[in-house]
Amino acid sequence: MTDKLIIFDTTLRDGEQSPGASMTRDEKLRIARQLERLRVDVIEAGFPASSNGDFEAVQTIANAIKDSTICGLSRANDRDIARAAEALKGASSARIHTFIATSPLHMEKKLRMTPEQVLEQAIQAVRFARNLIGDIEFSAEDGSRSDPDFLCRVIEAVIAEGATTINVPDTVGYAVPELYGNFIKNLRERVPNSDKAIWSVHCHNDLGMAVANSLAGVKIGGARQVECTINGLGERAGNCSLEEVVMAVKTRRDYYGLDVGIDTRHILAASRMVSQTTGFVVQPNKAVVGANAFAHASGIHQDGVLKARDTYEIMRAEDVGWAANKIVLGKLSGRNAFKQRLQELGVSLESEGEVNAAFARFKELADRKSEIFDEDILALVHSEKAVDGADTYGFISLAQHSETGERPQARVVFTVADREVHGESDGNGPVDASLKAIESHVKSGAEMVLYSVNAISGSTESQGEVTVRLQSNGRVVNGVGADPDIVVASAKAYLSALNKLQSKAERIAAQG
Amino acid sequence: MTDKLIIFDTTLRDGEQSPGASMTRDEKLRIARQLERLRVDVIEAGFPASSNGDFEAVQTIANAIKDSTICGLSRANDRDIARAAEALKGASSARIHTFIATSPLHMEKKLRMTPEQVLEQAIQAVRFARNLIGDIEFSAEDGSRSDPDFLCRVIEAVIAEGATTINVPDTVGYAVPELYGNFIKNLRERVPNSDKAIWSVHCHNDLGMAVANSLAGVKIGGARQVECTINGLGERAGNCSLEEVVMAVKTRRDYYGLDVGIDTRHILAASRMVSQTTGFVVQPNKAVVGANAFAHASGIHQDGVLKARDTYEIMRAEDVGWAANKIVLGKLSGRNAFKQRLQELGVSLESEGEVNAAFARFKELADRKSEIFDEDILALVHSEKAVDGADTYGFISLAQHSETGERPQARVVFTVADREVHGESDGNGPVDASLKAIESHVKSGAEMVLYSVNAISGSTESQGEVTVRLQSNGRVVNGVGADPDIVVASAKAYLSALNKLQSKAERIAAQG
Repeated sequence: MTDKLIIFDTTLRDGEQSPGASMTRDEKLRIARQLERLRVDVIEAGFPASSNGDFEAVQTIANAIKDSTICGLSRANDRDIARAAEALKGASSARIHTFIATSPLHMEKKLRMTPEQVLEQAIQAVRFARNLIGDIEFSAEDGSRSDPDFLCRVIEAVIAEGATTINVPDTVGYAVPELYGNFIKNLRERVPNSDKAIWSVHCHNDLGMAVANSLAGVKIGGARQVECTINGLGERAGNCSLEEVVMAVKTRRDYYGLDVGIDTRHILAASRMVSQTTGFVVQPNKAVVGANAFAHASGIHQDGVLKARDTYEIMRAEDVGWAANKIVLGKLSGRNAFKQRLQELGVSLESEGEVNAAFARFKELADRKSEIFDEDILALVHSEKAVDGADTYGFISLAQHSETGERPQARVVFTVADREVHGESDGNGPVDASLKAIESHVKSGAEMVLYSVNAISGSTESQGEVTVRLQSNGRVVNGVGADPDIVVASAKAYLSALNKLQSKAERIAAQG
Repeated sequence: MTDKLIIFDTTLRDGEQSPGASMTRDEKLRIARQLERLRVDVIEAGFPASSNGDFEAVQTIANAIKDSTICGLSRANDRDIARAAEALKGASSARIHTFIATSPLHMEKKLRMTPEQVLEQAIQAVRFARNLIGDIEFSAEDGSRSDPDFLCRVIEAVIAEGATTINVPDTVGYAVPELYGNFIKNLRERVPNSDKAIWSVHCHNDLGMAVANSLAGVKIGGARQVECTINGLGERAGNCSLEEVVMAVKTRRDYYGLDVGIDTRHILAASRMVSQTTGFVVQPNKAVVGANAFAHASGIHQDGVLKARDTYEIMRAEDVGWAANKIVLGKLSGRNAFKQRLQELGVSLESEGEVNAAFARFKELADRKSEIFDEDILALVHSEKAVDGADTYGFISLAQHSETGERPQARVVFTVADREVHGESDGNGPVDASLKAIESHVKSGAEMVLYSVNAISGSTESQGEVTVRLQSNGRVVNGVGADPDIVVASAKAYLSALNKLQSKAERIAAQG
């Protein structure tokens, strides 16, 4: 048994599957680069057969990332597997992850198949995949609620066919650490060829125990791969959180005795990137990456806490990327200082042209705002990159007015496929009026299911970052916009969401 | 050993101690009423000796709550304990909770005491407390990192003195479930009089394992009390979350075999009340109470999820208070419909006068906004109650304007101790300009450390709820304001935070 714990990140697959968290190809690539910087062992980049968009995203990531294995998900059928293999062609290290449900409930209600049919399909799938790629992961969906006798038969058979990683997910977040750990231990003891594969855990957080369940699978069960996501992003209550499970193994190395290859100093930047991209906020009391997780790093100076820092803090904030000193740029900062800060923040822009464009936006922002914080830079680069050439809608200008006793009014000028249009409307507030002004022209009919604002660095002098979540014909998209003026940020976010609605990706639901 | 698990909620003590989460007496009372509605067994209402404000809050809650035991925290000294007993006089059931640190690190660095001195002080404290009140809880702070031999001596001694509950906290969130469970099991086996007390767990979430650690303390260790908070509120990464630990015990009754008295249908309302009061957002992927925790309840309808609801959801959303049908009120709704909805939402107003005032605000809001959601009603009642007579600053009116290419301008009219003042300013955005307009008169010099906005029911037609966190001279306060106009909501929140800064409560830091 190796003493290395493999970190398998599925932010871009299981995380992205979370309603409202869907990402564009470029967003996924940017996050993949950050995961590579984190030194994640395996990046599950998507589910290529689910849509052309996801195929392209996996392909792009496979071509770009060199240091992490790139994994593509597929159901247990030849078409899905062939599609995944095709998307992964350019990868320096590739894995196919194929899955089928093995619990009585899922086999009967979802698959409408008998156990023997499921066993046969699992065997066929792994056999087919093994002829295409050497690194094959097999997942028994809803594994923790499956019959152990049947599960042993399936696992023994797929290992015999050449599966190199066996994942036993707690798909619905029903597990309890000691039971789950012993469940996996028992499987490993009973499956005769269990030592021919690395065992993996994949836990959901519905009862708040995803991290503990994963670690019980490792310590008690002998698993050596943990599947997890940044910020615990994922369907329902989400997946096991990468930052928590990694810091637990590091902080309690005395107990777990395992190495993890993660460069933890990039954790906070990864957390912010995923949060900004998806619009899923991180609560202040979130472990490791929440604003309050390290009291002394939150800008709050409480005497008692500071005095007794050692006595209350078991990790060092610096080790997960909370900078001790926040460098602030201003309008006099030059291109080199800006570029250096980008590097320190772990942002890599594709070309000098992109750096120049970002720097121009930085100068423009610096004219309106005296201190530029790290979060401003990240937001600026982010919104810069979100605007690709193919966008239908583009923001030009906005004027709005509100006064107690009068109905708020807004006028928005924007482009629709390069044509300039003016929209005007009143509304319940200036933001409402601005979005209605846009909608008066676009007539998307989309329903807004979420609207949230975060001031990027805690004060109203900083930029506001707005997330707008729209729903239309069963699709849910998020748009993000940043500006020192919250009303302008809202209009930008709304236009960005409309752009995403325009890309008509159809998706197949994958495993939970 | 009883088969009932005692739920001890410390939202109002350990939760409130979280930087930025401090609450007024009225806010604490309102949350205490909701905790009583939840049927929490013990409510830790505060730390009476820490400040006059906290003393009054505990006293008010002790007088008002009938169905839950009210607990007051105190350090292990006579003055603190006497003060707690005094605050608890009116309670129908009262508990004193006294604590002292027992780990080598805390004894040496924080207390600067020898183990023998700590033992002696613990004995004296429990002896003194036992003469005042029959229900005494003793906590060994940083218990999970304490020497077991020493801890056994302390615990045996305090039980002999009459402590009825023994709490072994994982103060710094360092524990691992199987180790922590066995640590408590070992203590209970070694302490000769261990059966004379109920054992309790109190876990922090720094490594994401607070719920699992608490449950290991219960299942493996034999503890029969869990200390927890709504939304997992608490210092750093927070405490064990009430909603998660309760739903885990209920959902996995097959394994834990324990009864909990909680009426889970009030969980969501409690979560929202705590989030709105403190300004601490709940992330969408938070278990049980996050917007995405139950996919079908989030307003998002994905075919696959809906079809296979049973196969993926292990709890029923209705059981934790996600309403199946959201009743919407409008401008034609009468006082009775409004009052009935308040009752259904679990809001109890003190007098008919308060109902009338809230109804008047409801009608005013309904004139400006066609559909009134539950969240609007909660925000309205909330902001209604936040304004007590003693406030220094009050909002009157606001006018603001922003236009691309010009500097945003705002004019705010507000009262300072009943005198009307006008402030004008420009700013980076209309919100920034409005707050600067207020600050131009008030000159508080407070630093803004957090600014966040949530649209209360997901669309910009709804009210915006703004939280402003100010820091001044080491004190941190949150102000909350709600209005359909985000700029107005921001000004109200800022004035509310300034009002809180005015109340000069001095606080002593308690146990983590």
